[in-house]
Amino acid sequence: MTVTSYAAHSAGTRLEPYGREPGPLGALEADVRVTHCGVCHSDIGQIDDEYGITRYPCVAGHEAVGVVEAAGSAVDTELLPIGTRVGVGAIAGACFRCAFCLSGRHNLCPQRDDTVMRGDGGAFTELLRVSDWRTAYPIPDAIPSAQAAPLMCAGVTVFAPLLRHGVRPVDRVAVAGVGGLGHLALQFLARWGCDVTAISRSRSKEDEARSFGATSFIATGEEGALEAAAGTFDFVLSTVSADLPWDAYLDLLVPQGRLSIVGVPPEKIAVHPMSLLPAEKTVSGGVPASPAETRLMLDFAARHGIGPQVELFPVAEINDAIDTVRAGRARYRAVLTLV
Amino acid sequence: MTVTSYAAHSAGTRLEPYGREPGPLGALEADVRVTHCGVCHSDIGQIDDEYGITRYPCVAGHEAVGVVEAAGSAVDTELLPIGTRVGVGAIAGACFRCAFCLSGRHNLCPQRDDTVMRGDGGAFTELLRVSDWRTAYPIPDAIPSAQAAPLMCAGVTVFAPLLRHGVRPVDRVAVAGVGGLGHLALQFLARWGCDVTAISRSRSKEDEARSFGATSFIATGEEGALEAAAGTFDFVLSTVSADLPWDAYLDLLVPQGRLSIVGVPPEKIAVHPMSLLPAEKTVSGGVPASPAETRLMLDFAARHGIGPQVELFPVAEINDAIDTVRAGRARYRAVLTLV
Repeated sequence: MTVTSYAAHSAGTRLEPYGREPGPLGALEADVRVTHCGVCHSDIGQIDDEYGITRYPCVAGHEAVGVVEAAGSAVDTELLPIGTRVGVGAIAGACFRCAFCLSGRHNLCPQRDDTVMRGDGGAFTELLRVSDWRTAYPIPDAIPSAQAAPLMCAGVTVFAPLLRHGVRPVDRVAVAGVGGLGHLALQFLARWGCDVTAISRSRSKEDEARSFGATSFIATGEEGALEAAAGTFDFVLSTVSADLPWDAYLDLLVPQGRLSIVGVPPEKIAVHPMSLLPAEKTVSGGVPASPAETRLMLDFAARHGIGPQVELFPVAEINDAIDTVRAGRARYRAVLTLV
Repeated sequence: MTVTSYAAHSAGTRLEPYGREPGPLGALEADVRVTHCGVCHSDIGQIDDEYGITRYPCVAGHEAVGVVEAAGSAVDTELLPIGTRVGVGAIAGACFRCAFCLSGRHNLCPQRDDTVMRGDGGAFTELLRVSDWRTAYPIPDAIPSAQAAPLMCAGVTVFAPLLRHGVRPVDRVAVAGVGGLGHLALQFLARWGCDVTAISRSRSKEDEARSFGATSFIATGEEGALEAAAGTFDFVLSTVSADLPWDAYLDLLVPQGRLSIVGVPPEKIAVHPMSLLPAEKTVSGGVPASPAETRLMLDFAARHGIGPQVELFPVAEINDAIDTVRAGRARYRAVLTLV
C-alpha cells in the first residue's frame, strides 16, 4: 500500500505529491483517512526551515480531521470504533507511562510523537498514522470537519491557557492579534464570560473582532492607545508571530496579571525587571495541549458553536493554500479538503 | 428626624409603619434613601422567628437599592458621592482591620454588621443607614434598580460559590431549585460558559428554566431521574430551602465534585461517609459575600444582562408581598417600591 502525501524537497519549494509505504500497523497505532487539514503558520516555518530542524522530504501539517480506517490490535475499538470521525493535532502519541503522562500532562512527555517533528510523516497526506490511538479525538457532531481541523492546533493553543492560568469569567482579558489564533481566542473568551478586548495594529479588523466577541478594541497604531489601557487586564494572550513592545504589554496588566504568549515571535522576548517584579506579573509560553485539555476544548466549542472562519482549498491547490498563509492573507484559517 | 420603617411586633403578625429616630450620623456611616427592596425567603423566617433569634419590633429586609443621601465625615465622597445609586445587602458594615477584613473576607468579620441581626434597623425602611460606607455598592447603569435589589442577596449568594469553588466554564453543573435563587444561578452559570442542568420536582418550570440558561432538565418526581444522572456533574448548587436526599445529590457528582448548599433546609444535612469520602467529594455551605465578590457580581451581571424576574409591590402593599413570598408564589422575586 502506497500512501500519497504532499512534500517539500528543500526549503521554500513547492509541495509535490510524494508516495510512501506506511508499513505494518503497530498495536497501539491507528490510521486516519484524512478529509480535511488546516494550514498553520508554523507549517510554513517547517517547510521553509525557519527553525533550522527540518528534515527533507518534509511533509508538514498537524491539524487533521478524518475517519479511523484501521486500528492496531491493542486499540480499544469500543472507545474508538473504526469509522469514527476524529481530529489529530500537534501530538500524535506519547508513552502513557512516564511521570508527565501519569499526571495528565502527555504534552510534556519526553517520548511524545510531535507531528511536526516527523519528517515525511505529517498530516498533508491522505492517510495519517497516529502512534497512539488516544491522540485521535472524536469530533462532536455539532462541529463540521472543516471547522474542526483548525481547532486541533490553533484552537487548543489558545484554549489551553485559559485552563492553565485559571482565567475566570469575571476577568478582563485582551487578545493581541486578530488572525488564525486570535479570532478563535476572542470567541473562546467571550463564551468564557470574560470582558474581551481585541488588540490589533489598525482598525481594519475591528468590526470582525467585535463579531467574534470583542467588546472593546485597541489599535496600537494610534498614538498612546496601549498606554491608555495600562493596568486594565487580568490576562493578556498574545497570538501574534511578531516582536511586540513587551514592557508595554506587561503594563497592560493589573498586579498579579498574566501575559501568555502563544504566537512565536522571531526575536527574544525581553522585559524590564521593573515591568515584571514589583507587581508580581507573569509571562508564560504555550505548549501543545494535553488530551484532557483537547477534549474539554472540543466539548466547549461544540456547546457554544465556536469555530474558525475558514477558506477551503482542494488538496490539488495545496500550493495556493501555502502561498495564502505565507503571505498572511488567510481570513482566518486555510483548510485543505482531501475528498 | 423620624424615619418610617415597616415592622412586625410579634412572630407572624402583619407589618405596620414604625417610626424611628436614627440619631447623629457616625464618621464612617452613610444614609441611603431606599427606592427598592427585595423580599427574601429569609425575611419571612426573621419576621416569623423561625430561627429563634428575632428581636421585636422587627424590621426585616436586606436587599436594598437607593440613593446616598448623607455621608459621615470620614466617608470618601470621591468614591461614593452624595446622590450615588447604591445597593446594600446582608452586610452593612465590618471592622476593616481584623485578619478576615485584611484578607478580603469582610463577610467573616466577627464585628460585621449583619443587616438581618439589627432588630428594628433592617431595609424595609425609607432611609437605611450603613455602618460603613464601603458596604454600599454603586450599581452599574445597565442594571435597573428593581433588578439590582435582589442581586444584593439572592444574586451574590449564588454567584460567590462560583468564585470560591473555582467553577470553570468547561464544567458540567446543576442547580437544584428554580426559584428566587435558582433562576439567578441558572443565568450566572450559563453566562459563565458552563453546561447547565436545572433540577426541579416537576416539569412545570422546565420552559422557564431553559429560558434562564439551562440546557438540560431533571424532574426529581420522575422515577429514577436523579439516579440516571449519577456521576455527571463537576458542581451542584442547591438553592432549595428543603431537605433533599443528600446522598443522591452527592452521587450526581464526578470524583472530586463539589456540592454547594446555599438554600437553608429545615433539618440537618446528613450524608453517608461512603457518598463523600472515597471519591473526594466536598459539601460546603454558603455565607454572605465579600465586598470584592459583590463588586465582581454586579459587574458580571451588568456585562451579561443578568437580572431577576421580579414582581413589584408598592410599599403600601408590603403585607401582600410578604404573603406572596411566604406562600412560595413569587415568580421569581418580590420587590417593594418605595417612591
